[in-house]
Amino acid sequence: MKGYVFHGPGEASWEDVPDPGIKEPTDAVVKVGAVTICGTDLHILKGDVPEVRPGTVLGHEAVGEVVETGGDVRTVRPGDRVLLSCVTSCGRCRFCREGVYGQCLGGGGWILGHLIDGTQAEYVRVPYADLSVHPLPGTLASEDAVLLADIFPTSYEVGVRNGRVSPGDTVVIVGAGPIGLAAITTARLFSPERIISVDLAPARLEAARRFGADAVADVHEAPHQLVADLTDGLGADVAIEAVGVPDTFELCARVVRPGGHVANVGVHGKPATLHLEDLWIRDVTITTGLVDTYSTPMLLRMAAAGRLPTGRLVTHTFPLEQMERAYDVFSRAAETGALKVVLGGEQHELAVPAA
Amino acid sequence: MKGYVFHGPGEASWEDVPDPGIKEPTDAVVKVGAVTICGTDLHILKGDVPEVRPGTVLGHEAVGEVVETGGDVRTVRPGDRVLLSCVTSCGRCRFCREGVYGQCLGGGGWILGHLIDGTQAEYVRVPYADLSVHPLPGTLASEDAVLLADIFPTSYEVGVRNGRVSPGDTVVIVGAGPIGLAAITTARLFSPERIISVDLAPARLEAARRFGADAVADVHEAPHQLVADLTDGLGADVAIEAVGVPDTFELCARVVRPGGHVANVGVHGKPATLHLEDLWIRDVTITTGLVDTYSTPMLLRMAAAGRLPTGRLVTHTFPLEQMERAYDVFSRAAETGALKVVLGGEQHELAVPAA
Repeated sequence: MKGYVFHGPGEASWEDVPDPGIKEPTDAVVKVGAVTICGTDLHILKGDVPEVRPGTVLGHEAVGEVVETGGDVRTVRPGDRVLLSCVTSCGRCRFCREGVYGQCLGGGGWILGHLIDGTQAEYVRVPYADLSVHPLPGTLASEDAVLLADIFPTSYEVGVRNGRVSPGDTVVIVGAGPIGLAAITTARLFSPERIISVDLAPARLEAARRFGADAVADVHEAPHQLVADLTDGLGADVAIEAVGVPDTFELCARVVRPGGHVANVGVHGKPATLHLEDLWIRDVTITTGLVDTYSTPMLLRMAAAGRLPTGRLVTHTFPLEQMERAYDVFSRAAETGALKVVLGGEQHELAVPAA
Repeated sequence: MKGYVFHGPGEASWEDVPDPGIKEPTDAVVKVGAVTICGTDLHILKGDVPEVRPGTVLGHEAVGEVVETGGDVRTVRPGDRVLLSCVTSCGRCRFCREGVYGQCLGGGGWILGHLIDGTQAEYVRVPYADLSVHPLPGTLASEDAVLLADIFPTSYEVGVRNGRVSPGDTVVIVGAGPIGLAAITTARLFSPERIISVDLAPARLEAARRFGADAVADVHEAPHQLVADLTDGLGADVAIEAVGVPDTFELCARVVRPGGHVANVGVHGKPATLHLEDLWIRDVTITTGLVDTYSTPMLLRMAAAGRLPTGRLVTHTFPLEQMERAYDVFSRAAETGALKVVLGGEQHELAVPAA
């Protein structure tokens, strides 16, 4: 089969790799139907995630059809259409028993396209299939469903839930890329009073408005002042970091009110400065986290019911074999306007940007 | 009357100041019976808390007798023996209505010995007396009660409760000064599996053992390794920072397990480095906070019932007029072995260290 193989920083290609097969009785093999590219994949290509070994097939998000299952798999069988979660869970370790699947100690967690071959291929082996794939309702298009593999549960769990977004809140979301836009969408499930989106790209701020931001601010034009003006000087109840650089994290810590929450979602490669000389007295809660995907079944139901317009994030679609072209378009998002690119879904042509 | 007056960094003296009187109908005037000195007072003397104006009487912890009340005061009257809380609360603002008294927007919060004259004096005016003083059971000695003005509610609320100490937890408490020792005492209310105390002074680590630490570690002898060894490499469920310098905060962030809590209690004068490149994926929650004193009535009941040995922290007692000597002993704690010093209580002589 073909797969998109990482060969070290800056090097990857769509090439022949061996077909995966069942290795453990808890495995399933899935024929990939639709797959997307994550900002984290670009981090891997830059060399920011050194534990990814050369030779690994990338990708941790997909929709597909089960083609083979090991003898211990009970919840899916060949022919089932499933969502592959970015997080694999053994279901038996301490953290899985607590629902903290992202920290699975039994060989799960984020492993696809990280520690083992991933989803950017024609076929993928999924360990612990019983808890790591989700049967899909037939009504949900692959382009909608595949965004529930990572980006929507991540924004919801690590951003909105960790940040404790509540009715009436002022929520600042720094970063209006796919994760930031998904955070806007899922924050709205809790009826905040207002969502303020901060980015540096005018096109992304326009997208933020389309996805439901009530106000937008250029990161270089004193967004903290806008937040202060809108909150009687108090600050935001919740600030969600959806970029992954020190400056944006520090902005979140600056705009949050006393007693507020800073929820970090971004993947960081460098430390940030924590201004404890200001924060020690301010009752601030800061959270970090990898998604656990405990919310994936609920988000799937919401999407199937038409209450979560996930597919609006998809700006470009390609056939699966155009992986290298898709990476090129996604990695030049500032020029191409790409938000999420989907390969191999039902539509194999350039999608119009979601309105 | 006499009071201990701040005259700018490095300068303060026990001197004549005007008697305080009722200024607002919600005020009370209290005759100070017992008062203590806080590490925060030393920060003020070093110039770390620039909003304290020269001319301010220091101190935010005391026990005393109400001598005069304004016309609107309902819960106490002259003759009542009361605890003066370090936090004053208007009871009417948004934060007071949420029980977040430390962030009071109505002119309260931490104001005594900070924004207005404090408790290190013969008399003190207490704004919003109805919610800012607590009637004391007669059975509780002043030396026990005065530690409930700040240090015990701070350790309990900002350390133990914010850190969500739970039965079975491994709790690391960095710093075995008065706050760290009070954190050991109040963490034990939640039956953790083990408490590991970290400090650099052997005498303080001995005190930590006496207060209930199950293990102790010198901060320079790889405490993170001890924590790893005791937790199968996983790390602590909760790490409480009770010092207030960047290194100890960073140690807390290093020893906490995935999914764990870092509760900052220390008063910081400098920023710390937050290693988001490690923490982003680890589900860590970091909290900061000023005490709200919502727990003071409960802690008072526990102390009165003999279930919270607060007075064990008192190593030295002095008559009130020996304020300057008491500051000298307290500020040279490494030599003098001082934990908490109490002035003006029932005992006016050097106490033996609590065994």
